[in-house]
Amino acid sequence: MRAEILSIGTELLLGQITDTNAVYLSQRLAELGIPLFFRDTVGDNHQRLRDTLRLAKSRAELIICTGGLGPTQDDITAEDIAAVFDAPLEMREDARVVVEAFFRARGREVTEKQLKQAMLPKGAIVLPNPNGTAPGFILEKDGVIAVAMPGPPHEMEPMWRDGVTPYLRARSGYTIVSRTLRFCGIGEAALETLLEDVINAQTNPTVAPYAKLAEVHIRVTARASSKDEAAALITPVEAAIRERAGQYVYGTDEQTLEEVVGLLMRERGLTLAVAESCTGGGLGARLTNIPGSSDYFLGGVISYSNELKMTLLGVPKATLVAHGAVSEPTARAMAAGVTAATGADVGVSITGIAGPGGGTAEKPVGLVYIGLAQKGQEPRAYRYTMFGNRTAIRQRAAQEALVMLHHALTGQEVSPW
Amino acid sequence: MRAEILSIGTELLLGQITDTNAVYLSQRLAELGIPLFFRDTVGDNHQRLRDTLRLAKSRAELIICTGGLGPTQDDITAEDIAAVFDAPLEMREDARVVVEAFFRARGREVTEKQLKQAMLPKGAIVLPNPNGTAPGFILEKDGVIAVAMPGPPHEMEPMWRDGVTPYLRARSGYTIVSRTLRFCGIGEAALETLLEDVINAQTNPTVAPYAKLAEVHIRVTARASSKDEAAALITPVEAAIRERAGQYVYGTDEQTLEEVVGLLMRERGLTLAVAESCTGGGLGARLTNIPGSSDYFLGGVISYSNELKMTLLGVPKATLVAHGAVSEPTARAMAAGVTAATGADVGVSITGIAGPGGGTAEKPVGLVYIGLAQKGQEPRAYRYTMFGNRTAIRQRAAQEALVMLHHALTGQEVSPW
Repeated sequence: MRAEILSIGTELLLGQITDTNAVYLSQRLAELGIPLFFRDTVGDNHQRLRDTLRLAKSRAELIICTGGLGPTQDDITAEDIAAVFDAPLEMREDARVVVEAFFRARGREVTEKQLKQAMLPKGAIVLPNPNGTAPGFILEKDGVIAVAMPGPPHEMEPMWRDGVTPYLRARSGYTIVSRTLRFCGIGEAALETLLEDVINAQTNPTVAPYAKLAEVHIRVTARASSKDEAAALITPVEAAIRERAGQYVYGTDEQTLEEVVGLLMRERGLTLAVAESCTGGGLGARLTNIPGSSDYFLGGVISYSNELKMTLLGVPKATLVAHGAVSEPTARAMAAGVTAATGADVGVSITGIAGPGGGTAEKPVGLVYIGLAQKGQEPRAYRYTMFGNRTAIRQRAAQEALVMLHHALTGQEVSPW
Repeated sequence: MRAEILSIGTELLLGQITDTNAVYLSQRLAELGIPLFFRDTVGDNHQRLRDTLRLAKSRAELIICTGGLGPTQDDITAEDIAAVFDAPLEMREDARVVVEAFFRARGREVTEKQLKQAMLPKGAIVLPNPNGTAPGFILEKDGVIAVAMPGPPHEMEPMWRDGVTPYLRARSGYTIVSRTLRFCGIGEAALETLLEDVINAQTNPTVAPYAKLAEVHIRVTARASSKDEAAALITPVEAAIRERAGQYVYGTDEQTLEEVVGLLMRERGLTLAVAESCTGGGLGARLTNIPGSSDYFLGGVISYSNELKMTLLGVPKATLVAHGAVSEPTARAMAAGVTAATGADVGVSITGIAGPGGGTAEKPVGLVYIGLAQKGQEPRAYRYTMFGNRTAIRQRAAQEALVMLHHALTGQEVSPW
């Protein structure tokens, strides 16, 4: 069974709202193992909606519509499904009762206009809507299932979960399982080269790379008649990927780099502090995305001014004068200084030129030093050259600091890749 | 000219990412006065992408593609546009130079795989990409304009603004001018009520509200035969809006709250420092988004642990014991402490419970105190109750701290709204 999603509403095409329904439904279809090949967005226009419904009917067996089920003139979904499926609208007593009950419960009289919502295509199954006035429906005809649900997510999601999912599960013979491997310290192209044979051999499971900010995700997706069977298909492919590029894997599925770094800190019983210059707090903000990060993250210093590098972090004035704020010795002194100031076991520092101004031939925009101080070891710092605008450089600097922490905690070589 | 947007990528159909590009482009097309009738989402599949391109070519004169321009096998957009428009791919020297320069600047060799990104349809105009490796392009053939841009929003948006918009503007007989007024300290519904008559009277210019995180934007868009004429249409509408709700306007057009706060700091010759607990550096990161923020932003302390609240900020142990870390006295002491530690004229502090754990009946998740210390004034702190998940609470806390700073610097009443 192939699915197609139709998002209906002129407000979508004007960019007034973001289509989160399409994301929600895409995820649910993937979980049900129903392939989704197209999503279409169309306005409140009979001709264009009917054209789109006809197209969807020609290439999918499951058409999921959201939006356009309300009482106004703009709400045309039921009428157009009725036309395309040749299933004339009729007043449905079971739907009428639902609409009337909604208004009666609120002490209001139901109007003729509101009752329009109980006019559904002949033969449709009514989907109750406990959270709004418009019932949804499922129409199965000509070997195609058309589902119509209201647009507001708080109405659509429960209707999907409680009304549509049980109906579809009974029809699909298989299930889908996905496994994501997360890589850092290697780019997308280099990783694809390492994994070329695995990627080329893919059928079931499929293997797809997704480039993120200074990390890459590889998603392995299997389809089978049971969860266990799908998992068994994934296992050897995951092993083959790890054999070729395992040293770059930092986590799996929904794990983020800051979460994995946190797990490693906690596992090793270590505490962490940061000294941030060009990122201005961005690394601390990443680390504290994680609930419970107070178990290992103490805090740190945003030493944006040179004065604070000296007073709060104890960077010697001579170092700043001789080498400048963006230099290897300053990054080292910042990392050492924040461990001294906070008593943390591990200190990470970032100092760089995020631009757009402030660069020179010798120290261009994008030059970043990341420093690392660990108890019982000499503090170190490494030089990076980063590209993109100010935001990209700052985000990447925080990300690379996390990569460095990850490598240091797992005993890997710490150096720009 | 009718437009159609094609969002390309299997990750979209799997629901792994939300298509914010389609929203951005829909808004920009509306501003340009170019009607958009369809948006299509299709995976990384030659047959289906070509079918969709052919369909779009049959019903639109402007096809805007995002995604699928990178170096991997999944990146098929250029190849399929070339096929459908019968404009064979060729190595474009102007694009090759751009890709090579990107890698050379990072001290890396460009690989054959990367150079695939310089293979563009014959006759296409190259769109430079300062923020990534994949150039975009515009191909005009058979009376249809095809635009291809990379998927990451931080690459796509500047390319649209600087490369595509001027191209499209030159083709339309009229010009569009937009003016955005940015509001803080008032919600969308309340603002819409204040502006009801202005919004209802709209024809040209149009007046559209956009709700953002703890701020609202009102976009006024006029269409006319010249920029001056369009600007003249906007002036009285802007005046009418400011007459009704001017006290909530903090900035215009692309100005962010952190930028306006920075301008006010600079204008008044003041320096600023932050003391952050639950935001972990997020406020400092916002403030340092602004180039040149080192002129007024000194830095501060991320006092995630109670220990650092005492040692680096001088919060008395007795205060923490008696009132707790998330309390009005602690927020006040943090703000005062960071001004003392850094010598800043103004200190802002944030302490709160971001969740999901750590809440109690008395101090629930979402409870946040924001403190303010200004030279010559008693430090103050205010209590906020915020909703949403951990991320939303943290982002909103940083935003409200900026709103507070803005109000303090403009002499408005400082209090939760």
